[in-house]
Amino acid sequence: MILEQINQPNDIQKIDPDQYGALAEEIRQFILETISRTGGHLASNLGVVEMTMALHLAFHLPEDKIVWDVGHQSYTHKILTGRREGFNEIRCHGGLSGFPNRRESECDAFNTGHSSTSISAALGLAQARDMRGEDNYVVAVIGDGALTGGMAYEALNNASRMKSNFIIVLNDNEMSISENIGGISRALGRLRTAPKYNELKNNVRSALSRTPGGSQVANRISRTKSSIKQLVIPGMIFEDMNLTYLGPVDGYDIPAMLDIFADAKRMNRAVVVHILTRKGKGYRPAERFPEHFHGVGSFDIETGKSVPPKTEASYTDVFSKVFCGMARKDERIIGITAAMPEGTGLKKFSRDFPDRFFDVGIAEQHGVTFAAGLAAGGMKPYFCVYSSFLQRGFDQVIHDVCIQKLNVTFAIDRAGIVGSDGETHQGIFDLSFLQMIPGMTVMAPKNCYELADMLRFSAAWEGPLAIRYPRGTACSKMREFRPPIVYGKSEWMFRERDIALLAAGSMVETAWEVRETLKAEGYAVSLVNARFIAPLDTEMLTALAKEHTLVVTMEENVRSGGFGEHVAAFLAGIQAACEILQIAIPDRYVEHGSVSVLKKELGLDAESICDRIRARRTKEEADV
Amino acid sequence: MILEQINQPNDIQKIDPDQYGALAEEIRQFILETISRTGGHLASNLGVVEMTMALHLAFHLPEDKIVWDVGHQSYTHKILTGRREGFNEIRCHGGLSGFPNRRESECDAFNTGHSSTSISAALGLAQARDMRGEDNYVVAVIGDGALTGGMAYEALNNASRMKSNFIIVLNDNEMSISENIGGISRALGRLRTAPKYNELKNNVRSALSRTPGGSQVANRISRTKSSIKQLVIPGMIFEDMNLTYLGPVDGYDIPAMLDIFADAKRMNRAVVVHILTRKGKGYRPAERFPEHFHGVGSFDIETGKSVPPKTEASYTDVFSKVFCGMARKDERIIGITAAMPEGTGLKKFSRDFPDRFFDVGIAEQHGVTFAAGLAAGGMKPYFCVYSSFLQRGFDQVIHDVCIQKLNVTFAIDRAGIVGSDGETHQGIFDLSFLQMIPGMTVMAPKNCYELADMLRFSAAWEGPLAIRYPRGTACSKMREFRPPIVYGKSEWMFRERDIALLAAGSMVETAWEVRETLKAEGYAVSLVNARFIAPLDTEMLTALAKEHTLVVTMEENVRSGGFGEHVAAFLAGIQAACEILQIAIPDRYVEHGSVSVLKKELGLDAESICDRIRARRTKEEADV
Repeated sequence: MILEQINQPNDIQKIDPDQYGALAEEIRQFILETISRTGGHLASNLGVVEMTMALHLAFHLPEDKIVWDVGHQSYTHKILTGRREGFNEIRCHGGLSGFPNRRESECDAFNTGHSSTSISAALGLAQARDMRGEDNYVVAVIGDGALTGGMAYEALNNASRMKSNFIIVLNDNEMSISENIGGISRALGRLRTAPKYNELKNNVRSALSRTPGGSQVANRISRTKSSIKQLVIPGMIFEDMNLTYLGPVDGYDIPAMLDIFADAKRMNRAVVVHILTRKGKGYRPAERFPEHFHGVGSFDIETGKSVPPKTEASYTDVFSKVFCGMARKDERIIGITAAMPEGTGLKKFSRDFPDRFFDVGIAEQHGVTFAAGLAAGGMKPYFCVYSSFLQRGFDQVIHDVCIQKLNVTFAIDRAGIVGSDGETHQGIFDLSFLQMIPGMTVMAPKNCYELADMLRFSAAWEGPLAIRYPRGTACSKMREFRPPIVYGKSEWMFRERDIALLAAGSMVETAWEVRETLKAEGYAVSLVNARFIAPLDTEMLTALAKEHTLVVTMEENVRSGGFGEHVAAFLAGIQAACEILQIAIPDRYVEHGSVSVLKKELGLDAESICDRIRARRTKEEADV
Repeated sequence: MILEQINQPNDIQKIDPDQYGALAEEIRQFILETISRTGGHLASNLGVVEMTMALHLAFHLPEDKIVWDVGHQSYTHKILTGRREGFNEIRCHGGLSGFPNRRESECDAFNTGHSSTSISAALGLAQARDMRGEDNYVVAVIGDGALTGGMAYEALNNASRMKSNFIIVLNDNEMSISENIGGISRALGRLRTAPKYNELKNNVRSALSRTPGGSQVANRISRTKSSIKQLVIPGMIFEDMNLTYLGPVDGYDIPAMLDIFADAKRMNRAVVVHILTRKGKGYRPAERFPEHFHGVGSFDIETGKSVPPKTEASYTDVFSKVFCGMARKDERIIGITAAMPEGTGLKKFSRDFPDRFFDVGIAEQHGVTFAAGLAAGGMKPYFCVYSSFLQRGFDQVIHDVCIQKLNVTFAIDRAGIVGSDGETHQGIFDLSFLQMIPGMTVMAPKNCYELADMLRFSAAWEGPLAIRYPRGTACSKMREFRPPIVYGKSEWMFRERDIALLAAGSMVETAWEVRETLKAEGYAVSLVNARFIAPLDTEMLTALAKEHTLVVTMEENVRSGGFGEHVAAFLAGIQAACEILQIAIPDRYVEHGSVSVLKKELGLDAESICDRIRARRTKEEADV
């Protein structure tokens, strides 16, 4: 095993170049075997093994800084910086993160997780370097998908001003940006870094006038330039932004990449290095279905099939099915995703209603405002998005949807604890950042049936509306509790005295368990399913406060600005006599780990909640 | 007066073309005279008089939809759609808005205010049109500045897929995008819309191979293309994105614009029409200092000077001065603005420390993450931004700054009620969206001295920090109250019994007035300046609750998720016996009007607050 010689950063630089191919193969096998057991991001990591090796050969870490956009493709980077041993517990609680993390290694220059941040962060690192008079390299590695995010463009626009070295590696794994792969453009890339090219560039006006027939050339170009550009010049868009473009280069040809990095290192400005890779490279099932192997659970390497096979429906599945049914009845319904057709459950919709489906790219801001425009035009758009990614569209939700009271529904998946993706992906802020927005209605279903009912409710609703539901298997309990959805009204599931459990969405199931336990211990316990997080059901709250001595709010959201605070503030405002206990996520970031482990650690599991309620009661009895 | 013939939408189409010039002059004079009295956005509106006329000649409203990016340049549009009479009260409470507003006119297709939203919204309107089988035109009008915003790029990326007419008017008023004004590019523009061009484009591969010397042409291009492009082909960046580019055309030549709009209307795809205008056109002082005449108060037309002249320092001025002083002492300090060097008070810093100043363009997302990168690189960046524009960087504040606990300070100007800019610009959400973020410290100064102290405090602080302060003249009262800033600690200004006023930032001055009034009526009133909105000063709150029967929180922020809710929830959690009264902005959007009128309407003035406190007391006495 060559891999055994890689135990700390830069060890790869001691490997004989003849062994690069074998090392790449070992890394690829290692990743495949690990992820098949632990789950994780597979296709993207298999695609960038050689490119990452080349980066680690060309740059010296941690002095040089590599910022990995999105960050889920950083497994080879982790392996090459002495973290191979940690892969047994990657994405597990307390183990390696699936993303770059400054706390984990000095070689992780900047935390990432959401898309399109790398160039901005790397530009900051590069400017800081220059100001401190240091001379390390700074490299942003960004995929072609992430380039569809507006902030990447904002950053490119700023990168063009750099007067010192700044390298942007464009990891083009879908060939969506340029189809001009081939010798001519590679030659062009090499040509550009040659001194001759820069000379020519500086002198081209005079050069042209000196060239016999120069004006004819210019003339001809003016007529045909658009297509000629398509034929011979990829990367024009970068040159247009005053960035030097190098490439494209084959992302599996390490010597070629080393050559181009050497060229890039010589430039005193921002340079885009265009590298062609392929998602899932080297593992047939992932090459064929990269979307399926984007983020996976454990699977059988031979067949590529999930282990154990998925049996129960997820909230996403329920959304998918019900939404298609609604779309059949209402032609105004439109489905919008920001590059997540699979994850949001819109895949089926996209096949059934291709004309009403829009994948806008990794562009949540545009997605939200585009939806607002559709609504202003009389349509009924649904923006289907992960909770943590909707943070990107926060201003647009306020400014473009809610101020104008437009008829946009947000179908918010991955709300609450998402588990092994960790800090950047937990959907634990949406209740706070949505319920504070005037005019926004926020709902959360307790189970799959209620999600269906809420979606159908949304079909008849006019105005901004958000429905948030968690990742994973849909709760299918409490089927008998299915009274019609009434705007702004919660559901009294059990109405007793003494203790009231007031739970939001996914926490209703937990509250049910809490109630069972406490009932068995002799407590009288009411259970209310909030259904509407905003507006608050003040009638219910007023009654709740009158009829109980303790109100316990439960939510999968940070405490600050969340449902419980909102309820507590209301109750304080009406001078309610009852005590209030808020069960929420403490105000901190939640790292990776399984959902159940994390919930327990955060005190969101039934047992912890029972303990806290009992403690209150015991204290009270002691006080009496 | 030709202007008197313009009383409803499309009336301009009845005007004799010979009179266009005179009409433009009348409109320009009307705007100048109005704004000199009322204040408003001057330079941008003077620049687009003829362009707006051309749009209203080429399109028929309200059937055709025009979306004005940013929207502050829509005065001529308002005049041409029957709202001239309303200009006496533009930006006044109950009067015309300074921005397009769907409630105000059917001819306002979409509300705007923040930058870079127009293409997204217009794309939504265009797709809705196509789905409904309608055939109106949809036009987005966007400035070159707004094009630096990432969401505009996200939208352009999506616009390229349009298979029906979609027009983007690029109002280029700084000539920053292209310097290639002239005959050749105009000719090129016309050429592109000719049928011949599209033919040629489709057949260019074969065309080239048939052309004698075709391969040589391609060859030569490959060597010189970058510079040739600079010479002859503006708009390449749009063509690269698969958008048809037309222009540039002179924004003061109405017939030329009508020609190009006619061409644009014939395209079955997205087309960018590049129009060259000049900010402040026709009014010398505004042409010379467009930045100064961007948003102005009333001024003297002869001299261009403010009436009455500004005398007292604003919070912005205080920030500007203190920040420069800090920067002299700490070389790590960096100032970042998103295209607001004047408004944020960074202009002086940019002159004193040009190497440490970054104007990133209208790119708040990039600005925040760039700051995070600088902090990760050991610098001490300040992102100086208006409250409502920071909404754009919400995800980046969480994802790039706070998760990594990076040392970024947010200097947040225009926090609270900003007045006449209205709904989209009120800074009334920042306390809610910032205090919910784990790891973020949020401060608000009571006066100019405290702003200085807080800034100096920030200089020694390590970690995410936000200081928010209002627009306009800085409060210079309470100078004697200046105890040192201690992390997380509020300031007890008066400690009595009975009623406690707990005020955040700008509301401390109001609380002072309230206290004076109530004291005179015989109440015992404490006054606490919160200083830190997050974290809460729980020690102070616990004492406050013990020592008083009524705690009144006061803030210039919406109630939902705001300071008062946070306090009330804390007090409810500790079963405080005191009553709580939250003075905050009701959960709705606040339209334009003067700050004082709006505060009164919202119940944020001393008199309204006194009334509410008295009502509580009277009720209590009645209850007893």
